[in-house]
Amino acid sequence: MSEQMKAAGEGIVTAALLVIGDEILSGRTKDKNIGHVADHLTAIGIQMKEVRIVPDDEPEIVAALNALRAKYNYVFTTGGIGPTHDDITADAVAKAFGVPIDVDERALAPMKAYFEKRGVELTPARLRMARIPAGAELVENSVSIAPGFMIGNVIVMAGVPQIMHVMLDAATRYLKTGKKMLSAAIELHRPEGEIAGMFEEHQKRYPDVPMGSYPFYRDGKPGTQLVLRSTDAALLAKAEAELKAELTARGWL
Amino acid sequence: MSEQMKAAGEGIVTAALLVIGDEILSGRTKDKNIGHVADHLTAIGIQMKEVRIVPDDEPEIVAALNALRAKYNYVFTTGGIGPTHDDITADAVAKAFGVPIDVDERALAPMKAYFEKRGVELTPARLRMARIPAGAELVENSVSIAPGFMIGNVIVMAGVPQIMHVMLDAATRYLKTGKKMLSAAIELHRPEGEIAGMFEEHQKRYPDVPMGSYPFYRDGKPGTQLVLRSTDAALLAKAEAELKAELTARGWL
Repeated sequence: MSEQMKAAGEGIVTAALLVIGDEILSGRTKDKNIGHVADHLTAIGIQMKEVRIVPDDEPEIVAALNALRAKYNYVFTTGGIGPTHDDITADAVAKAFGVPIDVDERALAPMKAYFEKRGVELTPARLRMARIPAGAELVENSVSIAPGFMIGNVIVMAGVPQIMHVMLDAATRYLKTGKKMLSAAIELHRPEGEIAGMFEEHQKRYPDVPMGSYPFYRDGKPGTQLVLRSTDAALLAKAEAELKAELTARGWL
Repeated sequence: MSEQMKAAGEGIVTAALLVIGDEILSGRTKDKNIGHVADHLTAIGIQMKEVRIVPDDEPEIVAALNALRAKYNYVFTTGGIGPTHDDITADAVAKAFGVPIDVDERALAPMKAYFEKRGVELTPARLRMARIPAGAELVENSVSIAPGFMIGNVIVMAGVPQIMHVMLDAATRYLKTGKKMLSAAIELHRPEGEIAGMFEEHQKRYPDVPMGSYPFYRDGKPGTQLVLRSTDAALLAKAEAELKAELTARGWL
């Protein structure tokens, strides 16, 4: 049974993010999109299960896209839809879906109007940004007009964070969402190594509430953030209250 | 021919990074390691070709690790080697390699001494951090003693950035490095859509110098950073000088 089918049966909607760009892998540009997409999807009830970063290389993009779109309900991509020769995402997506790609009048008309009004020339390079795979729906770009698109379960967005943000908002209305993953966090001024035993016992009592432990240092002292997660609010509240009571009884909270 | 074999023939060493952790995928923790590993590997002459982020789920970690270690010269992992039950990376790596895992005296002895000196109890949870897959070399942790390790072509590091940094430095001496990818960047106060045509022509003249274009906005005005990359310093300098001359002739620089 695929992850998609398993998930659908439980009211869970899953997604992956595919970040496309040599500049992220070389370190020249530091990614600012992964955290934003993660927060957004968690907030609307879609669970991000995997992220991949691949270079501006068509076979790599096609292979990653085909692996991810078969496994998750949605795949979001960022990067590679600008006007220059290294922007190859739209062509790679068309190839992955086996559909033609050409200038799309729905994309071109607003771009023409936008550029004309600003006295900006519609160069062949800018025209490239109106190339959309056949069968795709446009995803609005209220920042700089050239749109993203959605084809099948794949949502293609720009890499520039400000533009990606508005595209993600615009795409959200088309998405089926599922149960929201809720979480509760408890901060302790104890190191992980001391609380780990009791925390593991608590996890065993609530196998359906995944629990994670994240160490931190503050004012030179070690602390731990315990995070409990569930789509079931009542179960989460019960697991949290019980954990708090036990931590309090031990003098740890 | 695999990427590894192709790369070895050209003096190129490749790597992938596998980031392990539910907290990154949910957005609760924002990754700070990808950019650091990217910068470090580029500086020492290893090309990072792929990044994946997967959850704290053993089958997912094993599958990703086996896919990546077969494809690239090295795989670095971050996260999941602490003392709590959600730290499952060491076990997943042992499983991927099909080797046993147990408390390793080489890891345990310094941990014992370190904790004793500080009056810290060596709990069963802390003992977990001395579990190392059979056949692995230790990777020193000068921050908090519990080590990372290297097995085959896989380097396993902590997720806490300060600890990951010292482990990456410690592991570097064991790595075979290749030709360094050099780069040159030129900033223009012109939008991408205007320079794209001539930039593509320049790329065609230098097919072995990958060129990328990255838009930015500064003081409300669009600009473009052009990046040229090559392992051949002379070729890179020639491609850069020629591009600068053409940009200057057009009054764009």
